[in-house]
Amino acid sequence: MITVPVNLGPRSYPIYIGSGILGGLGGLLKEYGYGKKALLVSNPAVYQRYGELVKNSLVRNGFEVITGEIGDGEEYKTLDEAAGLYDLALTGELDRRCPVIALGGGVVGDLAGFIAATYMRGVPFIQVPTTLLAQVDSSVGGKVAVNHPRGKNIIGAFYQPGLVLADVDTLQTLPARQIRSGLSEVIKYGVIWDESFLAWLEDNMAKLLSGDSEAMAQAVWESCRIKARVVEEDETELGLRAILNFGHTIGHAVEALTGYKTFTHGEAVAIGMASAAHLAQLVGMLAPADCRQIVSLILAAGLPVEIPAGLAVERIMENLRHDKKVRAGRLTFVLPEKIGRVCVRRDIPEKVIKEVITAHAKGPTM
Amino acid sequence: MITVPVNLGPRSYPIYIGSGILGGLGGLLKEYGYGKKALLVSNPAVYQRYGELVKNSLVRNGFEVITGEIGDGEEYKTLDEAAGLYDLALTGELDRRCPVIALGGGVVGDLAGFIAATYMRGVPFIQVPTTLLAQVDSSVGGKVAVNHPRGKNIIGAFYQPGLVLADVDTLQTLPARQIRSGLSEVIKYGVIWDESFLAWLEDNMAKLLSGDSEAMAQAVWESCRIKARVVEEDETELGLRAILNFGHTIGHAVEALTGYKTFTHGEAVAIGMASAAHLAQLVGMLAPADCRQIVSLILAAGLPVEIPAGLAVERIMENLRHDKKVRAGRLTFVLPEKIGRVCVRRDIPEKVIKEVITAHAKGPTM
Repeated sequence: MITVPVNLGPRSYPIYIGSGILGGLGGLLKEYGYGKKALLVSNPAVYQRYGELVKNSLVRNGFEVITGEIGDGEEYKTLDEAAGLYDLALTGELDRRCPVIALGGGVVGDLAGFIAATYMRGVPFIQVPTTLLAQVDSSVGGKVAVNHPRGKNIIGAFYQPGLVLADVDTLQTLPARQIRSGLSEVIKYGVIWDESFLAWLEDNMAKLLSGDSEAMAQAVWESCRIKARVVEEDETELGLRAILNFGHTIGHAVEALTGYKTFTHGEAVAIGMASAAHLAQLVGMLAPADCRQIVSLILAAGLPVEIPAGLAVERIMENLRHDKKVRAGRLTFVLPEKIGRVCVRRDIPEKVIKEVITAHAKGPTM
Repeated sequence: MITVPVNLGPRSYPIYIGSGILGGLGGLLKEYGYGKKALLVSNPAVYQRYGELVKNSLVRNGFEVITGEIGDGEEYKTLDEAAGLYDLALTGELDRRCPVIALGGGVVGDLAGFIAATYMRGVPFIQVPTTLLAQVDSSVGGKVAVNHPRGKNIIGAFYQPGLVLADVDTLQTLPARQIRSGLSEVIKYGVIWDESFLAWLEDNMAKLLSGDSEAMAQAVWESCRIKARVVEEDETELGLRAILNFGHTIGHAVEALTGYKTFTHGEAVAIGMASAAHLAQLVGMLAPADCRQIVSLILAAGLPVEIPAGLAVERIMENLRHDKKVRAGRLTFVLPEKIGRVCVRRDIPEKVIKEVITAHAKGPTM
């Protein structure tokens, strides 16, 4: 088991990464002095697979477990679903020291985290991510939220977990599409922070796609290490943390405009990263060879790089204007300067953005 | 204008208290470097009186103002009303640097604060309290929340404002009942923290009830000063801050069980304080003379001290068990040891609690 510390003063916490560590959750939590009732939030598929293991581990360590299952998918990350979980917590008489535990992917983590952040003005929160995407991204850093009909993650908070436990064994049963989606965020870390990690990803992509446990643990560890360092510098996204949004500007728009149904989050981010790389090349920031390297790695991971041709440019532009990253009406893009370094730009002309969107809607220029 | 600083490191802010300062809001906010759109949350009665003054002050200083009105009363402090305000903010294209301004009493402040805490994971929040209760209590300290059908303030956060502006002139138009309700929390500060302030209140109660501006400013200042010191010690209610809940345990139960209709919050707290004083006397913590002094001052402010006889003891007990302050199943009471000092007790036998409730349902023993 590897431990990645996230150093945030009084809100510091460890990320535990390993193989076969899921059953150790109860033992770890026992040390924290939490209340003895826990709200375990999961979805039916994940709970069926790992619910009993986790629950037994908690019960063995003195916890009474109340289980709240939510549907699988972004469309369940709503204030309405949240209301149901508040009910459960109240019925179970959870007090402010009782932990809310998220067992599942990003949807479960975001929603359970929002409950933890707001139930009784905040109770302990534990992340047990079971998807690659959640292990490398959403479970670390304290972003929790629910969606608004008009935008993803519009209603949320920065609320750090007490610990994150990532068991890479849970990735073994993930559909290939979800592994690829997770690799999208993994590739992101290489592009924004670490050229040598990107090179390692190029060398190990086949292993990762075949689910090699050791390679996977390495990828999760490197990703968490990078994310932790960024979040430590800027917990509430006032500056540096914005770089984690590389690929997320156009990515979010594509995801939203296709009703969160056509693409997984990772796939949408892959399209967004390819578009951003192309945009960076177009404004002369990024060498064509670097742009090609980014796009090639995305394609090697089996991820899409093209915006669906059916999406009107103007609809995408309109969506971009409602992005959380918009400031004083200016669209924000995170663009690579070279592999391992990105910067935040608010000065890209709309004309150029539209040009890239149009080009990507036909397939990227390689 | 008096300024009370609230020192919370990066979350520090000033409370401005004075007469005729409402129109200065825009000028103050201009200095903060916020985004140039503001969501002004108010209720129809308050907005009719002060809306234009505040709005003009904002517009003069370069802000575009979007107004969101909510109904007047606890029953509007819901996730549903919050959803309507998120819509408004999105329609108005407010970004993360744009302030949400609460112009009104506790309901407006709590709900607008919840929006500010959660819209796009947190935007600047400005409190402009126009009731005595809000000026001395709810606007200071960062507690924001909405109600759950099964309990008040169940869904919320600790989220500090960027500034609080309390214009005591707004108290001139308050109904007498609301002034008395605010005085309930003012009396609380004397009991929990400052014997000489309590003595001052005894001497100046008539002035306060007649709306004397100078006395009112003094009472608001002393109250904010005490609250700021408590909140500085314990921002998120892990310890000391619990003393601010003096009177709120039975108070909340009475308020909830009468459907938030029979009593104002301050009246319910008055009943709770009288009950708590009586409880403290019954367990031998508080001298009978001190108990009498507390109850007399509450009565002098024209506030109730009796639990409605129609409320069954068992219903109150059941409600107490769902209080946010419950920890590991134990009811929590803040009880006075003497005027100016209280302590938190989790060891009061249910039998004694029931005894006090029963006694107070018939009227207090004086």
